[in-house]
Amino acid sequence: MRIGYKEAAQFIGGCDNVLILTHASPDGDTLGSGFALCRALRNAGKKANVLCSDDFPKRFDFMYTGCEPMDFEPQTVIAVDVADAKLLGEKLSVYADKVQLCIDHHISNTEYAERLLLGETSAAACQVIYRLLREADMAIDDQTAVCLYTGIATDTGCFKFENVTKETHLIAAELHEYNIPFAKLNRQLFDIRSKDRIKAEQLILSGFETECDGKCAVVVLTLDLIEKANIDPDEFDGIASVIMQVEGVEIGITVREKTKGVFKASVRSASEADVSAMCRKFGGGGHIRAAGCTLEGTPDDVKKRLFAAAAEALANGA
Amino acid sequence: MRIGYKEAAQFIGGCDNVLILTHASPDGDTLGSGFALCRALRNAGKKANVLCSDDFPKRFDFMYTGCEPMDFEPQTVIAVDVADAKLLGEKLSVYADKVQLCIDHHISNTEYAERLLLGETSAAACQVIYRLLREADMAIDDQTAVCLYTGIATDTGCFKFENVTKETHLIAAELHEYNIPFAKLNRQLFDIRSKDRIKAEQLILSGFETECDGKCAVVVLTLDLIEKANIDPDEFDGIASVIMQVEGVEIGITVREKTKGVFKASVRSASEADVSAMCRKFGGGGHIRAAGCTLEGTPDDVKKRLFAAAAEALANGA
Repeated sequence: MRIGYKEAAQFIGGCDNVLILTHASPDGDTLGSGFALCRALRNAGKKANVLCSDDFPKRFDFMYTGCEPMDFEPQTVIAVDVADAKLLGEKLSVYADKVQLCIDHHISNTEYAERLLLGETSAAACQVIYRLLREADMAIDDQTAVCLYTGIATDTGCFKFENVTKETHLIAAELHEYNIPFAKLNRQLFDIRSKDRIKAEQLILSGFETECDGKCAVVVLTLDLIEKANIDPDEFDGIASVIMQVEGVEIGITVREKTKGVFKASVRSASEADVSAMCRKFGGGGHIRAAGCTLEGTPDDVKKRLFAAAAEALANGA
Repeated sequence: MRIGYKEAAQFIGGCDNVLILTHASPDGDTLGSGFALCRALRNAGKKANVLCSDDFPKRFDFMYTGCEPMDFEPQTVIAVDVADAKLLGEKLSVYADKVQLCIDHHISNTEYAERLLLGETSAAACQVIYRLLREADMAIDDQTAVCLYTGIATDTGCFKFENVTKETHLIAAELHEYNIPFAKLNRQLFDIRSKDRIKAEQLILSGFETECDGKCAVVVLTLDLIEKANIDPDEFDGIASVIMQVEGVEIGITVREKTKGVFKASVRSASEADVSAMCRKFGGGGHIRAAGCTLEGTPDDVKKRLFAAAAEALANGA
């Protein structure tokens, strides 16, 4: 059941002993939303914990300090930035049909929760959380503001992507009232790369091939290649955008060999090409500009099939 | 003489046949300011041209379309984003003592112009221009808004650097009222790299050395190296921030051999270290976090001296 800010504010104002669920493979927005809400609820004298099926990533350490788990008997279950109960992951799957309120911004939300507060045009769930806390008249301190800013900044690629709206900037302006080390935080979130991450990006930028006059680019990272380069496999997360940095590339495909002969392709489009349709041909899917699929075969065979499909997607989108 | 927005608005309201001067080695802000002001003046029925000692860079082509040079006898000279008459470059040096109004945001402005409108806390000159046009009640169309957005976005590294304030985001929010292809523009300004640029960045990220436990990093790009890699020297502009992406680096130095045995060092600091003081020791200078100097010698000798100076700057800043 869809609800508005007023009703959602009343709900969180009246709840207690809250479990806040984030999605598996957590990103800055789900964690920012979770910890901002948690802090605000605790500041209002309530008990709340943030849960995730996966371990909290070290790179968002600054969000967790001072928000250690409390001991209580759960009464309320709220999910943040979780579009589908399946995305809760294994450990939290037990709550899949127990979510009383979902606060989200994905238009693909499957409405699995009892109540859904959906900010359809919000760039991040943190934008929705911010408005909700204001509606509920709940105090926002510096640390809460840091969490909200992190969610908004990471989901927009630091105010860069297509999801940025006037409201995104207005909220960012309001967050500037708080004592947040913005530049230092931005540097940490967007600029700094580990040595392994740099190696991974170099592998991609020196190893890609192109067709269709440079418009389609494919790079295949075999198990062999990754092992020889001695790169921590974790460093490949979120790396599918790197190939899009190459001038002229409209469809960029980053392929990783997951197990021998099984290749996961991450496809990105910067043009009118629909890569979700392209990936569906291989049994995959996703969004118009970002999708994925799995292929089996040899590196050369996989490359050939992907180039062919990309050329077709380009022609269809033209 | 320092003036405020009201007086500056009256000045531009009453002027005509305007030469708008930008600084040499023009960036997005000086060009954005220049072309935004030019368009606004022309929309108000006045004649105006944007001038630069150097050629207008191709990457900002989108700013110049529809703003071709007009033919008129100059009566007014306005400089935008030019902190010092010396920065006008050679061709425009003839106007050094003829600037009637300077619109700027650098606190180091030498007050060489007859009148100075200085937005001291503005992240970009374009922020000042935007407020000025509003004060002067001059129409801002989509193309003018594109120029203003470009200046603000480039000077802030897409809302990332330390210069971003609440006002920066408020103005960005207002610019979202215009029909600007933000995401496409951001991609062009910040993400896309030419193949040569990618090669240049790879040279740096695979060739740097570190000392002081990884806190000081130096990379020397010799004439030999650049030639062998077959990289267009222009692609090294603005590349001094790349080395700062390496995790743990607090002082990053990118050295380019300009002529045989003469090395220009670009120094960046991400800590409390004052690299302006460090560069002054070599006869150079700049800002606390970004400075430069020139050294002569062999690559190894230059590297040694820079590492020593960086270690000292780090110790001093601790």
